[in-house]
Amino acid sequence: MDEWRVIRRLAGLGRRAGARVVLGIGDDAAVLSPRGPVVATTDTFVDGVHFRLDLLSAADAGFRATAGAVSDIAAMGAGPLAILAALEVPAGAPDRLPLSVMRGIATAAGRFGFVVAGGNLTSTPGPLGITVTALGESVHRPLTRAGARPGDDVLVTGRPGAAALGLALLRDDPWRARRRHPVLVRAWRRPEPRLAEGLALAALPGVHAAIDVSDGLVQDLGHVLDASGVGARIDADTLPLAPGAVRAAASLGLDAVEAALTGGDDYELLVFAEPGAAAPVPGLTRIGRVTSGRGVVVTRGGRRVSLARRAGWTHR
Amino acid sequence: MDEWRVIRRLAGLGRRAGARVVLGIGDDAAVLSPRGPVVATTDTFVDGVHFRLDLLSAADAGFRATAGAVSDIAAMGAGPLAILAALEVPAGAPDRLPLSVMRGIATAAGRFGFVVAGGNLTSTPGPLGITVTALGESVHRPLTRAGARPGDDVLVTGRPGAAALGLALLRDDPWRARRRHPVLVRAWRRPEPRLAEGLALAALPGVHAAIDVSDGLVQDLGHVLDASGVGARIDADTLPLAPGAVRAAASLGLDAVEAALTGGDDYELLVFAEPGAAAPVPGLTRIGRVTSGRGVVVTRGGRRVSLARRAGWTHR
Repeated sequence: MDEWRVIRRLAGLGRRAGARVVLGIGDDAAVLSPRGPVVATTDTFVDGVHFRLDLLSAADAGFRATAGAVSDIAAMGAGPLAILAALEVPAGAPDRLPLSVMRGIATAAGRFGFVVAGGNLTSTPGPLGITVTALGESVHRPLTRAGARPGDDVLVTGRPGAAALGLALLRDDPWRARRRHPVLVRAWRRPEPRLAEGLALAALPGVHAAIDVSDGLVQDLGHVLDASGVGARIDADTLPLAPGAVRAAASLGLDAVEAALTGGDDYELLVFAEPGAAAPVPGLTRIGRVTSGRGVVVTRGGRRVSLARRAGWTHR
Repeated sequence: MDEWRVIRRLAGLGRRAGARVVLGIGDDAAVLSPRGPVVATTDTFVDGVHFRLDLLSAADAGFRATAGAVSDIAAMGAGPLAILAALEVPAGAPDRLPLSVMRGIATAAGRFGFVVAGGNLTSTPGPLGITVTALGESVHRPLTRAGARPGDDVLVTGRPGAAALGLALLRDDPWRARRRHPVLVRAWRRPEPRLAEGLALAALPGVHAAIDVSDGLVQDLGHVLDASGVGARIDADTLPLAPGAVRAAASLGLDAVEAALTGGDDYELLVFAEPGAAAPVPGLTRIGRVTSGRGVVVTRGGRRVSLARRAGWTHR
């Protein structure tokens, strides 16, 4: 890899500074002028740990890493500002590897309203590493994990479990997965963080808490309940499943509802709000209720489910 | 490595949120309330590429990585705000490795006035990787690379070349280096970015540009000259050398002046200002002048020096 050549080409991808990005790539640091408090998060994705380059393209990997960081901004109810991307590129890799990753990052950043304002490029004797820092602006108020109250609805955006099933299908037979289940595969490769929903929710007074589903719905639910000092009852029969999810899961001997409860990587939002308070925001489904007793009770077909693994499905 | 246990302990290191850190470690993202535009930079340091764990401790590595990112904030003339730290920890490493690195990061952050507000921890089949994102607040105006004007003084903070000599001494004989040259060794292991100087300079109207010396004085000088469309003459005889630098360099068959011109990793600032304009800020030395002709001319003992390598000394 010719670092200077790649850096010059990468810089071209991020030069379009936005209204709130005063200074982008090319100086010691970027300069941003947010309209409110700044929300900041960083996430690292490593080849062989968080993704596998044999199951997605380098551009997909960049896109996914960006979506993961942006999802944290969405979960705080903040709007888009800037992305900083740090790549560790295996020694001897061709220039097109970092360029493809950066193209995926720039595509995701552009789609979600962020400007790529800076970054870092280094070679490594290890595998490809992608660290994305996402910066957002909190134009309403931050939606934190601590704030869920007994009696709140537990709501979820989109169709949880789709990404985990997409990954399972890819692992089983990549070619067949792409042909037969493009929606599920895309949910894993090119997830869409819920920025618009987060922003809209942060403006509603009865919305109390939010988190994004990165490790698995039940596990991430637990983080909010712990931070809020409450518990929850979840009715698994109300989980909104992606079209074709049940059949796709069955073809692998898996259960689509279990995928929705424990599969990670969806980047959907879990939302905690007074009954009806989140109604103006489309695409949310009520899946349970916050309780004053601690712990999570999941029921299915009227019976209590014991979840063998709360650890979430693996990422790769 | 027990990730959850390490994360819980790491979180303890960063919990002391400051006045401008509304929400620190423990939620989806940190929330910051800067007093002006936000300055943002990210830097990755990889074991075997940017440092060697046999030449410094894990805590030193964390400190150095943080100093490197903070130095970019200093070069923009901004004040401290927050640090996000992303660690990639080799599979099988003991918990004390990431904890020591984080202790170094927290020590540096505290010393430089930053709050560790977030981060990420993952295992990797590769070497230890440390990605530090530093966020600062621009309370005056950003000092960029583009702005140097013909006739400006070229000034430098501190004693450039000290870190490169410290590293060369460590490589030659670590035990002897630590005992005989503690100041030079410390310059490499625990560099002190020039935040106070940067902030003070950004408030002075006749100061036109700045950059931090990370790759080597002549190389980083070139970045400012390119961005400003000017050239410079540097008088190497005026370079302020660290005490003992000449003798230490000679003991290795090296030249202290060459170390000052091409050695990286000092995190000193190069400053471009109207003659006298930077005088209120202590610790700066005039080493040359900006010219309207392009390119860099370095003289020593009245004769023009040709620098064999502009690429800077290696980092490790």
